[in-house]
Amino acid sequence: MWAELLPVGRSASSGGYRRHAWNSADAECRAWFEEQARARGLHYETDRNGNQWAWLGDPAAGNAVVTGSHLDSVPDGGAYDGPLGVISSFAALDELRARGAEFTRPLAIANFGDEEGARFGVACVGSRLAAGVLDRDAAYRLRDADGVWLPDAMLKAGHDPAQIGPDPELLGRIGAFVELHIEQGRWLTNEHPVGVASVIWPHGRWRFDFHGEANHAGTTRLDDRRDPMLTYATTVLAARKKARLAGALATFGKVAVEPNGTNAIASLVRGWLDSRAADEETLRQLVDAIEQSAAERGERDGVRVTLTRESFTPVVDFDGPLRDHLADLLKAPVLPTGAGHDAGILASAVPTAMLFVRNPTGVSHSPAEHAEQADCHAGVAALADVLEDLACQPS
Amino acid sequence: MWAELLPVGRSASSGGYRRHAWNSADAECRAWFEEQARARGLHYETDRNGNQWAWLGDPAAGNAVVTGSHLDSVPDGGAYDGPLGVISSFAALDELRARGAEFTRPLAIANFGDEEGARFGVACVGSRLAAGVLDRDAAYRLRDADGVWLPDAMLKAGHDPAQIGPDPELLGRIGAFVELHIEQGRWLTNEHPVGVASVIWPHGRWRFDFHGEANHAGTTRLDDRRDPMLTYATTVLAARKKARLAGALATFGKVAVEPNGTNAIASLVRGWLDSRAADEETLRQLVDAIEQSAAERGERDGVRVTLTRESFTPVVDFDGPLRDHLADLLKAPVLPTGAGHDAGILASAVPTAMLFVRNPTGVSHSPAEHAEQADCHAGVAALADVLEDLACQPS
Repeated sequence: MWAELLPVGRSASSGGYRRHAWNSADAECRAWFEEQARARGLHYETDRNGNQWAWLGDPAAGNAVVTGSHLDSVPDGGAYDGPLGVISSFAALDELRARGAEFTRPLAIANFGDEEGARFGVACVGSRLAAGVLDRDAAYRLRDADGVWLPDAMLKAGHDPAQIGPDPELLGRIGAFVELHIEQGRWLTNEHPVGVASVIWPHGRWRFDFHGEANHAGTTRLDDRRDPMLTYATTVLAARKKARLAGALATFGKVAVEPNGTNAIASLVRGWLDSRAADEETLRQLVDAIEQSAAERGERDGVRVTLTRESFTPVVDFDGPLRDHLADLLKAPVLPTGAGHDAGILASAVPTAMLFVRNPTGVSHSPAEHAEQADCHAGVAALADVLEDLACQPS
Repeated sequence: MWAELLPVGRSASSGGYRRHAWNSADAECRAWFEEQARARGLHYETDRNGNQWAWLGDPAAGNAVVTGSHLDSVPDGGAYDGPLGVISSFAALDELRARGAEFTRPLAIANFGDEEGARFGVACVGSRLAAGVLDRDAAYRLRDADGVWLPDAMLKAGHDPAQIGPDPELLGRIGAFVELHIEQGRWLTNEHPVGVASVIWPHGRWRFDFHGEANHAGTTRLDDRRDPMLTYATTVLAARKKARLAGALATFGKVAVEPNGTNAIASLVRGWLDSRAADEETLRQLVDAIEQSAAERGERDGVRVTLTRESFTPVVDFDGPLRDHLADLLKAPVLPTGAGHDAGILASAVPTAMLFVRNPTGVSHSPAEHAEQADCHAGVAALADVLEDLACQPS
């Protein structure tokens, strides 16, 4: 399966993936998913919000066990983030069939659309829409960097955007959801290459706009400047320092500058803060502290700072009994994660769990992301055990 | 004249100009120049390198007095930088004709192409090529952000790129060049709205590449990161501090980030430093000091820093006798400038001077750039006086 999917949407220059919602690489991934479903005699369908489903058994019977993940990527992402969960789902089904397992509940494998939010700036669009966490009007207002609206991108890719919105009928079918994902840190060890998720840290994205004044870099006296790059730089360093003090994470990884000319003092610097912490109060205090640093330096620089919260996801506690049951079944450690996932969205609607597979370097969202083959096989075996336990109990 | 030129290439959103070499706005400006020339019965021609010329008298006679400037702009530039010099040249000719002046030397008005370097990254391309300071091969290797090569852009705009290169025959015609330009600082006062340039500070552009490691912003422990944004931020602040100590200028106004995703630690941050100082030794020491700060912080961050000098222009001393003569003629103050100009390029080949017109706010390279009408008229009168003095002496 890997061999077919590996080259799709991979940049020759960076070696990273550029599978963004509804682009051509995404379409190839989706076609691959449909092929895998049909090759296994599964019932294939696309839901109202463009998520893909491969069903074994009657979708309408209810109490289904669902597994899967996503196939899209961040800009220049790695090969495993998302695809490992989808591929492991098909492989686990193959394993269960080889074991001669008999299913007593419907099983589905899902590919959730636009998990990374790389193109339209909002993560987990497919699962959020289905769960009613993102409303249809808000989705219609999403636009990519080239000015293309989300519904137009959907339509161009062959999905009718008139259908999008909450899908309680779909969620009503699901009895449990288990997502397998590569770990995005270095918590898991050789001894325990597979773990079970405890919680997802609360996290959010904030846009800082630093408004200065464009001017000639070669002639404007330092005292006459209102240079927003200075305020931005101070804020980047303050964010790191304050995150360290709070035992949390804060990152500026995206910047846009106007006019962005070598010999022009910037008129506007936009910097996007990604921040996460173990609890919501710590996160709130951290972002407040970063904002205060920005405002103080802005006053010195003659730069006005505005802050916009672009997204926020509260802490997600995965279903306690399911988590404890799976940890016990797999003799696997339990660990938290700072990353958002479709499982985090679905957890509000259905009993949900996550399995993580060891990442030896911790590198993620990068072409250098890597998982050992033996660990991937351990992940498939663990997922097969979980699905067998959940979906193959004698009724 | 202003009324026709003002709307060309102006962005409705920013109010700034986007007249970049060989784009459609540039073509409109060039058509305007040709019209102005023909309307005054001047002999119009384009030289090998795409600079435009309007001649009064015999171009081949030699010892011509040349004035003019440029019509292109930085991204979102102001209305005066460049156009004020060209428009004032035509207006000064009108004024001299109204005075009944008799020309004893040929006079030419020039519009030099691609002065700002906004599109291809090298400033003063038209004058540099003519003066042989930029060679033809180097010009052929220039490419814009969309991947369009300079010669292809020229060809598309109707100029044959096979012709470009040094133009000693053209330079041989010129006895003196005087460029009028809006001041890009706040040196000139109400009492003295017109000044004469002494020198152009040495200046250059350096590209800092900060090489880190892409990773997930939500899961990677702070200690496991190699985040180049931190090194960049430190370098921005160090540049400002060290420039202040050196009485010089240092600016980061242009940044490019890879992959530039909100939830991805950057793998690469590129920052362009523009720096200028009163003398070359001070400038060298300043850039060395900034590089050292970057390298020191890079070591802490696990970030490799490389420095590339993209351009460097030595100090330009304008022709001493001409400068003193004009300052005396106009009773005008003499001032240095930090900005590069076509006059700075031509100064190496022909006796050259510059006049500056007061800029009340000092704002430049911005839609907010402004000059008072009375000061513009004073500039035209001064330029007319200079041209009359140089080109209308009884032989």
